[in-house]
Amino acid sequence: MQAIDLLIDARWVIPVNPAGRALDHHSVAVHDGRILAVLPTAQAHTAYVAGEFVSLPAHALIPGLVNLHTHAATVLMRGFAEDMAPMQWLQERFWPAESRNVSPQFVYDGTLLACAEMLRGGITCFNDMYLYPAETARAAIEMGMRAALGLVVVDTPTTYATDADDYVAKGLALRDAMREHPLLSFCMAPHAPHTVGDKTLSRLITLAEELDLPVHMQVHKTLDEIAQSVARHGVRPLERLRALGMVGPNLIAAHAIHLAPEEITLLVKNGSSVAHCPTSNLKCANGIAPVAQMLAEGVTVGLGTGGPAGNDRLDMFQEMRLAALLAKAASGDAGTLPAHRALAMATLDGARALRIDHAIGSIEPGKFADLTAVEFNALEMLPCYNPVSHLVYSAGRENVSHVWVAGRLLVENRGLKNGQKNDLEKLALLWQNRLSMETKA
Amino acid sequence: MQAIDLLIDARWVIPVNPAGRALDHHSVAVHDGRILAVLPTAQAHTAYVAGEFVSLPAHALIPGLVNLHTHAATVLMRGFAEDMAPMQWLQERFWPAESRNVSPQFVYDGTLLACAEMLRGGITCFNDMYLYPAETARAAIEMGMRAALGLVVVDTPTTYATDADDYVAKGLALRDAMREHPLLSFCMAPHAPHTVGDKTLSRLITLAEELDLPVHMQVHKTLDEIAQSVARHGVRPLERLRALGMVGPNLIAAHAIHLAPEEITLLVKNGSSVAHCPTSNLKCANGIAPVAQMLAEGVTVGLGTGGPAGNDRLDMFQEMRLAALLAKAASGDAGTLPAHRALAMATLDGARALRIDHAIGSIEPGKFADLTAVEFNALEMLPCYNPVSHLVYSAGRENVSHVWVAGRLLVENRGLKNGQKNDLEKLALLWQNRLSMETKA
Repeated sequence: MQAIDLLIDARWVIPVNPAGRALDHHSVAVHDGRILAVLPTAQAHTAYVAGEFVSLPAHALIPGLVNLHTHAATVLMRGFAEDMAPMQWLQERFWPAESRNVSPQFVYDGTLLACAEMLRGGITCFNDMYLYPAETARAAIEMGMRAALGLVVVDTPTTYATDADDYVAKGLALRDAMREHPLLSFCMAPHAPHTVGDKTLSRLITLAEELDLPVHMQVHKTLDEIAQSVARHGVRPLERLRALGMVGPNLIAAHAIHLAPEEITLLVKNGSSVAHCPTSNLKCANGIAPVAQMLAEGVTVGLGTGGPAGNDRLDMFQEMRLAALLAKAASGDAGTLPAHRALAMATLDGARALRIDHAIGSIEPGKFADLTAVEFNALEMLPCYNPVSHLVYSAGRENVSHVWVAGRLLVENRGLKNGQKNDLEKLALLWQNRLSMETKA
Repeated sequence: MQAIDLLIDARWVIPVNPAGRALDHHSVAVHDGRILAVLPTAQAHTAYVAGEFVSLPAHALIPGLVNLHTHAATVLMRGFAEDMAPMQWLQERFWPAESRNVSPQFVYDGTLLACAEMLRGGITCFNDMYLYPAETARAAIEMGMRAALGLVVVDTPTTYATDADDYVAKGLALRDAMREHPLLSFCMAPHAPHTVGDKTLSRLITLAEELDLPVHMQVHKTLDEIAQSVARHGVRPLERLRALGMVGPNLIAAHAIHLAPEEITLLVKNGSSVAHCPTSNLKCANGIAPVAQMLAEGVTVGLGTGGPAGNDRLDMFQEMRLAALLAKAASGDAGTLPAHRALAMATLDGARALRIDHAIGSIEPGKFADLTAVEFNALEMLPCYNPVSHLVYSAGRENVSHVWVAGRLLVENRGLKNGQKNDLEKLALLWQNRLSMETKA
């Protein structure tokens, strides 16, 4: 018998690859943070002696969820303004409050809180785009969570950086300092077509190619953005990005709501990915993305929550369910985007878009043990005829019981480790009071 | 000081009427199952001495949620078949399994389980449409939950009744026997336009008028239903119902997805109500109902989960959030269907449609103390700037802590009273095994 670090027995292991499979009474053997084997529980107990053993008799074990687009730190402004038109919301509420408050401390504190929420909801990796990404990195590492850090760039100054060159320099310095960290990966992150000019974009494209980094950008999110591009550049944003050489396998187009058929073809042909954010897209009244068409054409589509100041739940169970539901209604076919596909979008396809699917996104030997256990014995989950569809249509993040990142247990029986909850509550209330007072002043 | 049964102190009381208000540090005084007063907590403690006292220091107290359209007992077939076209789903999976299994015991057991789920999710009243409504009533009463019982009628025989007259007779007998029960109300419930003929409908209309009952019917749910009506009757279902005299203040049109502008006007002019079921409508690929237009015209729109065999969550928090999100995207205006309106739809407007808004639906003196407490101190709810929008956009049913129906505490700290959970789990697994074996046979 082989000595290993961790053995997890589960009622079902849902590996995601192969698609749609739920392995009855299987176990996952973990050593040195990585998955060693996935095998029937009866065999596992004759093959391994484990330092730690966890029994999940009524649970599905799935790959940790990948939140492919967020601005984590803005959770401190969750619900700060609601039911407003996006531009009014940004100009009158979000930007003024953000510009007064954003700081390294804001980003660090906000990201800690967001990581706690994401972990408790079964999310093990997030792709972030926000100011002070070094603080995002520090918070993610402290929480033990995996992060793809957007090296954010806009053309306008903020407290974080003075101009495009400064954003780029700060981003690259962060990557140089942290590139060996096993929990981190990096993306070039030009904010959006209307906030970054051609000169900056061209430089980022060159850098992304040289450094072999994904490019994470919000694209075709609003009709305004498209109209502005047509007015200024004579073409829609995607065509402008194509002409600049940016539509390639390293592009992650976040939101990507308004896509003509030929634009979907453009994404497929160039191997670009989409971060679909169904809740955020609806809440901002931006529309319903043509996901059924994208999937039919073969675009890699992951799922994201968008920023928590807008969404207001960092909840990938909601995004899986809503993605599946919306695609059915939009296509008029209830068979569109079946449950196992929604789960793949929330895991392996997100990892693929980030180009880290060699490391995470499915439960396969050799990958990191980023794992989420979902408990199936709540009354709300009974009866159960198919664990995969139940996971998407019945389960919620409240059913997540255990979460591991690289084999390290971060959530156990719904609770964060090490009494983090109290400290995080205090942090949240501190910022709540500060922002509330401002509003009243 | 006045002696009363129950005093509840809450961080916020959200009475729903007046709309959009959150009363800081208020209390609700309850006596004999009814709300006696809503007043500032400081005053409450000098005015009343309560037999029971509950402190909710980080909670919003809202009216119990009203699920305006469901088929509760079918929770036993939750997730029985997924990602299938509705007619294929019905014909190949649902109807065969239902016809083999439906029985008084099935309905009683299923309704117990559904009530448990609904109560834990803050739902205190449900409007049901299913076979064996006497069993639905028995289960609801046993769980202490309020129910509007659909006296279901179709033209085809089932194990429950042989023909339309038999359905009607059984429904009326149930109403006669139970009409004084304080937890129950009744609706005539012709299933849908394509399953009930003109003769039966005419009789039901007369009866509903004589007995002053709402008429709960699925209307304009699918394009097929509309096409069938045009082929058979020469008109769309709503026009057929109008001609029969059924479109009046007692009509609750469930789903009502496909509505032309003049059909919305017809509903408004006649004071008819709609039970909007956003999740079910999407999942069955039936479409997105024109809720923004209905609300703008003044239709009373409540919210429902639809049947749990299709949805698969009896979760009115999901329905509130999804109704608000969809209406924004469908109208292109993020200000459409603001949070307080979604909450009103899930409470007072549902009660209005059922014509029991004199008794429930808001936190006002004289109404029954049907109350739901939502805890706001989970990390997922922090920070909080506006409790009403937080309730709709951030909270989930997992944040429901306490539920009372007519002043009786049924859920305390997320748990059902009296150890019901174990028995219900056993029931669910019994039916799960039975239906699973059938599938394999």
